[in-house]
Amino acid sequence: MQIQGKQYRSIWREGNAVKIIDQTKLPFEFSVETLNDLEQACHAISSMQVRGAPLIGATAAYGIALALTHDSDDATLCHASKQLLSTRPTAVNLQWALEYCQGQLLELTPSERPKRAWQLAEEICEQDILTNQSIGNHGLALIENLLKQKPGTVFNILTHCNAGALATVDWGTALAPIYTAHNKGLAIHVWVDETRPRNQGASLTAWELSQHGVPHTLISDNSGGHLMQQGNVDLCLVGSDRTTATGDVCNKIGTYLKALAAKDNQVPFYACVPSSTIDWTMQDGLQEIPIEERDSKELTHINGVNAQGILQTVRVTPENCPAANHAFDVTPSRLVTGIITEHGTYEANDLHQLKRQLHHDRN
Amino acid sequence: MQIQGKQYRSIWREGNAVKIIDQTKLPFEFSVETLNDLEQACHAISSMQVRGAPLIGATAAYGIALALTHDSDDATLCHASKQLLSTRPTAVNLQWALEYCQGQLLELTPSERPKRAWQLAEEICEQDILTNQSIGNHGLALIENLLKQKPGTVFNILTHCNAGALATVDWGTALAPIYTAHNKGLAIHVWVDETRPRNQGASLTAWELSQHGVPHTLISDNSGGHLMQQGNVDLCLVGSDRTTATGDVCNKIGTYLKALAAKDNQVPFYACVPSSTIDWTMQDGLQEIPIEERDSKELTHINGVNAQGILQTVRVTPENCPAANHAFDVTPSRLVTGIITEHGTYEANDLHQLKRQLHHDRN
Repeated sequence: MQIQGKQYRSIWREGNAVKIIDQTKLPFEFSVETLNDLEQACHAISSMQVRGAPLIGATAAYGIALALTHDSDDATLCHASKQLLSTRPTAVNLQWALEYCQGQLLELTPSERPKRAWQLAEEICEQDILTNQSIGNHGLALIENLLKQKPGTVFNILTHCNAGALATVDWGTALAPIYTAHNKGLAIHVWVDETRPRNQGASLTAWELSQHGVPHTLISDNSGGHLMQQGNVDLCLVGSDRTTATGDVCNKIGTYLKALAAKDNQVPFYACVPSSTIDWTMQDGLQEIPIEERDSKELTHINGVNAQGILQTVRVTPENCPAANHAFDVTPSRLVTGIITEHGTYEANDLHQLKRQLHHDRN
Repeated sequence: MQIQGKQYRSIWREGNAVKIIDQTKLPFEFSVETLNDLEQACHAISSMQVRGAPLIGATAAYGIALALTHDSDDATLCHASKQLLSTRPTAVNLQWALEYCQGQLLELTPSERPKRAWQLAEEICEQDILTNQSIGNHGLALIENLLKQKPGTVFNILTHCNAGALATVDWGTALAPIYTAHNKGLAIHVWVDETRPRNQGASLTAWELSQHGVPHTLISDNSGGHLMQQGNVDLCLVGSDRTTATGDVCNKIGTYLKALAAKDNQVPFYACVPSSTIDWTMQDGLQEIPIEERDSKELTHINGVNAQGILQTVRVTPENCPAANHAFDVTPSRLVTGIITEHGTYEANDLHQLKRQLHHDRN
């Protein structure tokens, strides 16, 4: 992605250190932090300086490399894995990356490990980028197809939360088709849902689109339905934290409401999903996917900068206001027009085609 | 309504002055302000110390009384009407109240006017309360009926924005059935939509429910669909700024999304509507009702109190973030289970019954 006119990834290596963008300071300050050791890598994940499942996985892999650079014996490797896993215990990519790295590295002698650990982290990053670029290209084909129905006008895409470059190593998932289309010179404009209560739309998506120069407009989470009624949305693109084998899409709370409005107004609604986040064991998203309930303070208190430019946390409710903070919801596949993966675009109720293809590729 | 254990209205007379609750300070401070003259009444409306169509109308009538108490000639009366009308030029109740008072008062001699002006203001307030109490009773009958299907459990009502006592003289419209049911001892609980961008749910509805002792939980505007999917909403009650003859309901932005979710989950969705806010000339809400677009700063900046208890306005977006702030949306009547008015509850597509009744009552 472009930031201040330069090409950036969300994470990269410099010598024996790792650089990250501190996302807790966005959108108020662009700050690159250096991670020199395991503790700093753990802190980056647990404090949410880095977030987004793919980026957390990449950071964990780099955390292993940092640890082994200091000391590469078995005890260090196991300790590092355990420490990193405990930073965000529910993140699937985190666990996968750590198990993968640990498995590969335990087979080597300690002296071989540091170099290979850095290689593994780089490979995980490159794979994430390839996956997202592929999602971007399949999404671009969809946009170009839809554009044929309204040539010569601006194409309006609505997105929810941040499934952007900042949630991955680069490109993002839902934003990958947007960057790809914009880079190709297509006239696109993005409606950015604010995404209460953590405001990832306002603080991350609006920021990264602005830095990259993609035309966009921030809206309240309440506005998408009205915009669709008025014919001002041509396509909805969202990410997904977990998708069932039946095409039910679990994503940031509020996604379901936008899918309902899209259906009611015949607006195509697509989820952009790396195939690794499809849970082939699940058949019914509403019944089977547990929905995390987070600290109500995320709803009752908001971070912002005051007129003097000073970062403040303010309470926006009555004192001790009872509040509930459900973090995700499930959009049933009947409301999802299609699923864009790195292998192609599938009807939501037809993911078994993709499953067959993945099985075939493995054999 | 109960505030700090005492019975309050949103506006009342004390001697030759008028008392209001300064709603710009809520939910952070409960402050009663005194209006002594026309200028203070105008300021109370234009600065939104008072808001909500019925309360604005009542304040305007009191503004006339305040002006005539100082000087009751024709010029003062006309000047006062004109000044008050210019405070919020689009509010229907404001114009109605002013035309009604002016018409009644111009027929009197100047010396008779002050006393009658106070009477008219009181009458407008009493009529508002009677209307809302009647909506409350019709809504109570609905709740009691629905409760028969789940006896012995808490009855969960979702509401959007503030159509409460603070938007009227007392009781509110959408909150009138809630207060009526609570006062009768029914076990109800209210899900309060935050209602971005002006946060009327968080700052007004949560506050007045809390003061009155009605169990409630604040949620993000994104959450209602998930709660309905999980069976945690038994009824949606919303207000309306304008309702068409065909039952299309214009209300705070985001109402349409909740109506879609209610339909998708078979949750009854009712609008609470004084018959005076039905626009019998309109047939198609989506085509005919103009939607106000407000200052984008309402979305990009938020008021709250910091850890030191100091009121701050903070920016929550990147600097100069493009933002759009549509204030209302239209819920088509096909998504509205019914309209609760002071004359009874009607199917949304059957308002002509009410029209016939109103016509019959007038003749």
